[in-house]
Amino acid sequence: MQLRFARRVANAKKSFIREIFKVLGQKDMISFSGGFPNPSSFPIEGIKAAAIKVLDSDGANALQYSSTEGYLPLREYIAKRYFARFELKVDPSEILIVNGSQQAFDLISKVFLDIGDTVVVEKPAYLGALQSFGFYEPTYKVVPLTETGLDLVALKDALKDNPKLMYVVPNFQNPTGLTYSNENRIAIADLLRKTDTILIEDDPYGELRFKGIDHQPIKSVLDEQTILLGSFSKIVSPGMRMGWIVAKKEIMEKLVIAKQASDLHSNYFTQRIITQYLMDNDIDKHIETIKAMYLKQREQMLTSMKQYFDPSITYTQPEGGMFLWVTLPEGVSAMKLFESAVVQKIVYVPGDPFYTVGEDLNTLRMNYTNSTPKEIDEGVQRLAKVFNEAIKKTNSR
Amino acid sequence: MQLRFARRVANAKKSFIREIFKVLGQKDMISFSGGFPNPSSFPIEGIKAAAIKVLDSDGANALQYSSTEGYLPLREYIAKRYFARFELKVDPSEILIVNGSQQAFDLISKVFLDIGDTVVVEKPAYLGALQSFGFYEPTYKVVPLTETGLDLVALKDALKDNPKLMYVVPNFQNPTGLTYSNENRIAIADLLRKTDTILIEDDPYGELRFKGIDHQPIKSVLDEQTILLGSFSKIVSPGMRMGWIVAKKEIMEKLVIAKQASDLHSNYFTQRIITQYLMDNDIDKHIETIKAMYLKQREQMLTSMKQYFDPSITYTQPEGGMFLWVTLPEGVSAMKLFESAVVQKIVYVPGDPFYTVGEDLNTLRMNYTNSTPKEIDEGVQRLAKVFNEAIKKTNSR
Repeated sequence: MQLRFARRVANAKKSFIREIFKVLGQKDMISFSGGFPNPSSFPIEGIKAAAIKVLDSDGANALQYSSTEGYLPLREYIAKRYFARFELKVDPSEILIVNGSQQAFDLISKVFLDIGDTVVVEKPAYLGALQSFGFYEPTYKVVPLTETGLDLVALKDALKDNPKLMYVVPNFQNPTGLTYSNENRIAIADLLRKTDTILIEDDPYGELRFKGIDHQPIKSVLDEQTILLGSFSKIVSPGMRMGWIVAKKEIMEKLVIAKQASDLHSNYFTQRIITQYLMDNDIDKHIETIKAMYLKQREQMLTSMKQYFDPSITYTQPEGGMFLWVTLPEGVSAMKLFESAVVQKIVYVPGDPFYTVGEDLNTLRMNYTNSTPKEIDEGVQRLAKVFNEAIKKTNSR
Repeated sequence: MQLRFARRVANAKKSFIREIFKVLGQKDMISFSGGFPNPSSFPIEGIKAAAIKVLDSDGANALQYSSTEGYLPLREYIAKRYFARFELKVDPSEILIVNGSQQAFDLISKVFLDIGDTVVVEKPAYLGALQSFGFYEPTYKVVPLTETGLDLVALKDALKDNPKLMYVVPNFQNPTGLTYSNENRIAIADLLRKTDTILIEDDPYGELRFKGIDHQPIKSVLDEQTILLGSFSKIVSPGMRMGWIVAKKEIMEKLVIAKQASDLHSNYFTQRIITQYLMDNDIDKHIETIKAMYLKQREQMLTSMKQYFDPSITYTQPEGGMFLWVTLPEGVSAMKLFESAVVQKIVYVPGDPFYTVGEDLNTLRMNYTNSTPKEIDEGVQRLAKVFNEAIKKTNSR
């Protein structure tokens, strides 16, 4: 028998992050690679109390099939929170519960992308989104990220042919940790308004701002045209795979059909537990705890990098979220140094998978949320050994 | 702004079953429509104990991100059970945990189907699968179902052009309740062996045989070429959306990549709870309880139909599962009678959505698992009123 796969997967590669997972089990390995929340932040007791309450009070319904859209009280909660945080008016009917943002990428692609359609993405962009879009065989246009958001000249150019979709992470972007300024958001909305391009505004980290003040979502000035994504992964639990899509009625109708064909509905038992947990607990207080923890870890990483890294290495200073982005001197490949780093028992994510083209780039992503300050200091020292030596070699060539 | 959807959804319709849901809330409505397990069969206390145990003993891991493939002890359990039931050898690495069979349809389509590729399906076929395949814009070939399985002459013809996929439900098929004989399974395997066609053997109801003896899965005689699907929806809880795919290594590699791009991994918290539940409870005893319940409900439906239905109405007599299939006299449209049935406070699923072509057909699906024997008797009486009158009218024309 001959295996005949679809064209879309014939060339699909396993994600590099998956490959990294394989070395993570090694003894004494320190990892700056994953996007894992700190497990000590998980509200285990709160989830347990919620699970017991749901099963005791309404177990038969909680274990039964449910609606594709998701549990209404959960959608109402999400809508209320948008209004409380940003005075953003979202109707619960405009919210679809999905299995984390990753499923949002898949469903939106399914609803919008024909083969060859253009998707505008950030440079660098979140690799999980690129992976998901990739299954729908699009063409990419990239817009470089700056310290204050998208490069507007490049964006204007990328929008010239009225692309189908544009994907951005305006808060504490993955992988760079950068945040779009208010001015940049408004300028993006102004440019998009002249097109039929649907903006996917992904916001998994927005609740995790530990410095500065929150910015309005782009959706608040480009409502009809924006699909906003949110997630409980970074504030409650990622293993529960619970996120949501906010979209206007006509788009939502198609997304619901796509969701139904994809897996009927998201885990209803877990939707009920999360809802109960949110009702019975002060989520803002919980988020404050997470933010205090992450700020401390971020400070340690910045301090250690300043202390140990060669001064030719630069990095972003995120005001929230889970990642920062390191740039090595031109010509030093983070991918090529990955193996030496593994030998030193430290891993990160080389920049390559965050770009739609190019390889052996001089950038890398570092996560600070899933290591103790002590591990962070030790990990940065190990990295410095690898990087500084490579830089010395390059300079002496 | 102009909305520009992908071609695949421009014509996608909401499922008729979703439309049925809307009338289900009406007072005194009896429903034979859904595929809902009887909620009184849900092991609420067992799930609660498992949830507490998982959170108490390993909460931080249970709430964290996990591997795309799924929790290894759960996959080991599934593999062991196949061996215990059928001496079918499955390696845990050949199992992928997914969000119910519905996600299996999507992932398999993603991995195999290019636009226009042929999928062979039963006539009639499970509408959820048709909906899922439909997003990948295939061409269908249909093979009629008989009392003993697929029509082999039609199957031979359908396989002539070496189609990419073939989808079957050999045990207590949805919608007909029919089961393939052993001879039919072997004949199907013999025909498929000459092709490169991948067989999707869907088995959500196989554990629910309340009469007769189990047959071997087709996979046991066509191992390499068969993708076998299973689910906890009908034996533990459908709201948890937990199913699995069994496939050989080369296919599994692609499925894992597709799963990762689709939603990273299935709800890990729930995987852990189900595993714990299975470890601490006698699932066979639990399944016996469900089967005893469903047999009683099935007997009531057959008895009532015999008593009240016009003798020109025929129906299948399933040996397990959740559905039976009713055939009205030629020319009587189950779809057209649906509204009269709603007026009588009884709903079913008209046959139309189970076919790839045709409308106003004289067939319908009835579910007996989610109504009490008393409701079943009352519901069949209401239906008889609608059907018998329509038959009388047709005869007098």
